[in-house]
Amino acid sequence: MFVTIVHVKVKPEFVDDFIRASEKNHLQSVKEAGNLRFDILQKEAEPGEFALYEAYADKASSAAHKQTAHYLEWRETVASWMAAPREGIPYKGLMP
Amino acid sequence: MFVTIVHVKVKPEFVDDFIRASEKNHLQSVKEAGNLRFDILQKEAEPGEFALYEAYADKASSAAHKQTAHYLEWRETVASWMAAPREGIPYKGLMP
Repeated sequence: MFVTIVHVKVKPEFVDDFIRASEKNHLQSVKEAGNLRFDILQKEAEPGEFALYEAYADKASSAAHKQTAHYLEWRETVASWMAAPREGIPYKGLMP
Repeated sequence: MFVTIVHVKVKPEFVDDFIRASEKNHLQSVKEAGNLRFDILQKEAEPGEFALYEAYADKASSAAHKQTAHYLEWRETVASWMAAPREGIPYKGLMP
């Protein structure tokens, strides 16, 4: 399992828009070959901070996600809503 | 869904021990009522840095995890292996 945790800070006035755009991305992403999880999380202490938990069977299927129409649409849609550059941290999934 | 991402930094000489102890914790935790995910992740860029991705149906089942024998054993076993205090960040799971 190959996991990327993407940390996103959103400008306060775009929090609801970001949630809607990310839910749309989620619904398509979970249908991708190799996708295991695509969880959208909102930090309890900071509602403008989100984490996208993107787990794939391997690096190839994770990389393929970034070529999909829904990812590219999400990336463009949310770009101007960011309060800071988003950061993706790659992990090796040991369990399961 | 209620999620805690626990960030752990382990002293280099205890990385293998930490993985073994955390796998044992994983195998019991996924059997708990309300557990949805209990993923053990190792940072690609820093093999001494781990994330535990602990998703539960609600806060009550997440809190119950901290009363289990396997959690208490894990916590005591790994305590002296930490290179820094571990940090758990709570999130509200929006999707799924």
